[in-house]
Amino acid sequence: MNIYDISQKAGVSIATVSRVLNNNKNVSEKTRLKVLAVMKEEDYQPNAFARGLTLNTMKTVGLLCADSSDPYLGSAISYLEQGLRAHSYDSLLCCTGYEQSQKEKCLDMLLSRHVDALVLIGSNFIERNTGKNEYLYRAASQVPVLILNGLLKGENIYSSLCDDTEAVCNAATRLLKSGCKTPLFLYRADSFSGTKKKEGFLKALELEEMDWSKDQIVMSSGSIRDVQSLLLDIHKKLPFDAVLASDDELAIGALKFAKTAGLSIPDDLSIVGYNNSMLSICCDPELTSIDNRLEYLCNTSVSLLMNLLNGKTAPDKTVVSADIVIRDTTRKDF
Amino acid sequence: MNIYDISQKAGVSIATVSRVLNNNKNVSEKTRLKVLAVMKEEDYQPNAFARGLTLNTMKTVGLLCADSSDPYLGSAISYLEQGLRAHSYDSLLCCTGYEQSQKEKCLDMLLSRHVDALVLIGSNFIERNTGKNEYLYRAASQVPVLILNGLLKGENIYSSLCDDTEAVCNAATRLLKSGCKTPLFLYRADSFSGTKKKEGFLKALELEEMDWSKDQIVMSSGSIRDVQSLLLDIHKKLPFDAVLASDDELAIGALKFAKTAGLSIPDDLSIVGYNNSMLSICCDPELTSIDNRLEYLCNTSVSLLMNLLNGKTAPDKTVVSADIVIRDTTRKDF
Repeated sequence: MNIYDISQKAGVSIATVSRVLNNNKNVSEKTRLKVLAVMKEEDYQPNAFARGLTLNTMKTVGLLCADSSDPYLGSAISYLEQGLRAHSYDSLLCCTGYEQSQKEKCLDMLLSRHVDALVLIGSNFIERNTGKNEYLYRAASQVPVLILNGLLKGENIYSSLCDDTEAVCNAATRLLKSGCKTPLFLYRADSFSGTKKKEGFLKALELEEMDWSKDQIVMSSGSIRDVQSLLLDIHKKLPFDAVLASDDELAIGALKFAKTAGLSIPDDLSIVGYNNSMLSICCDPELTSIDNRLEYLCNTSVSLLMNLLNGKTAPDKTVVSADIVIRDTTRKDF
Repeated sequence: MNIYDISQKAGVSIATVSRVLNNNKNVSEKTRLKVLAVMKEEDYQPNAFARGLTLNTMKTVGLLCADSSDPYLGSAISYLEQGLRAHSYDSLLCCTGYEQSQKEKCLDMLLSRHVDALVLIGSNFIERNTGKNEYLYRAASQVPVLILNGLLKGENIYSSLCDDTEAVCNAATRLLKSGCKTPLFLYRADSFSGTKKKEGFLKALELEEMDWSKDQIVMSSGSIRDVQSLLLDIHKKLPFDAVLASDDELAIGALKFAKTAGLSIPDDLSIVGYNNSMLSICCDPELTSIDNRLEYLCNTSVSLLMNLLNGKTAPDKTVVSADIVIRDTTRKDF
């Protein structure tokens, strides 16, 4: 007699049996009693390897990120791993890269290893084409899925994120109020957070009643060098006077461009980065950067998971506001 | 009947029984036959949870590093995790911090989770006080222990590292030959690799028959800002003209110092970093940096582990020579 037999006999899904065993509240009292009755009748003892069980749990959380060599993702891993360990949970890590097939493969691998929950670090795990998110719903039918810096609605899916739209809107407004007329928005991809940040940028232009052209929205997934030469090309046609970048590495590409183009920072060109990572103080001049409170988000994510794994409820969405750390790439009146 | 009973009945250690099950060659033929005979006699079926068994293995490797938010360690984790996954092994990660007690606790935790092998990333896991390395020998009696960028001799312990002494000696020699008279060596701690690097620096001074004072050897475990102000103090008493740093972050502290002190790079001050990390191209001017071939070391480490876990032998020490990437912080004739 295993979890499959119980689900068949009770006429419910395996996920529902798992939820009953997890004390997950998303099960009606009627269903819960029916499942428990079948378990009692069959004298069912949950197997340690049955998925997502609190009884005989493996006490392991699966962490997925695209690439731990990204300083931002590496920091998130460190905060999460230490927070989980303080609650006696171990972390099984998968660096998936950016390919959809690899993301799905890694997630299935972690599920096959009987993790108690999954944390997806970074919004790149969510696709705007909702069909591509099927793998996340499938995972959530087995264990709680927490998305750090991304938002997806669904049963047993939880999101902890920074308000990227508000953060970029505020920073862009400050750039405009400090006298910039033609800001560029520089970002990597139309991922969940890329899109949110772009929305914030456009919102600020609208609020300040600025004319703008679509050439002010620039996408580059390349290296610092690639960004540098891309901006040199753009600047010949569109003499922009500010760059708001969706991460610090892109912002450093803008710094390198300014140097090559002989532009003075911040007088000729203001630059704002995102993440307030170590990179923002390595460059010269040092970067003004939006701080999306990664450590705080990681800590609250761990608390949220502990709630869920101990049979308590948790909010399906936690949104925090960002901070902005002002350094030398923005004007005095920024 | 479990692995302990088998070891008692055969009159050998548990580690030896484990080695027989692992097809590890470090067991005499006589002992191997004796253990196999006891197993046959007792009709022993290895338990999936018995430690370090190839039969019913958990196919998991434990990774330990001090802090995955360090870009160098974060990159190593990414390379190792992907390499292991290509061989269908999962990675259980522990970020230990730098405290001895935490390192030991994490290592014991991973062993209790039945990992097939351990990889310690970074020489900080090895103490010069050999009594403090007892936990590593204890671990190696259960599973293969691989040390990345550190060297420890012992049964079932394997080291993959870059020749740090040679690398620093070559770089320091090039600094001296390019006209620098008073180079500083800037490092974080007398760890295994810190010591090796310092030896390389002193060797170069000796080879080039330079006079030197112990003030040219500077230790700082602080932030970029701390290094900046420390060097400002030192420069007042000892007007050094080159800094060779044991990592890129320290080298960037030296860059910041040069800017504050009004020194021109590389004319007044040459700077060489270590690791050739992303930081080395974020700063301005960009850093000349020693590349200790991290990706190559990680890939060979994975191959080595696969050899061991498939019952083949492997060299207990693999040493590779470093490269040096020349950018803008060293003179033309460097």
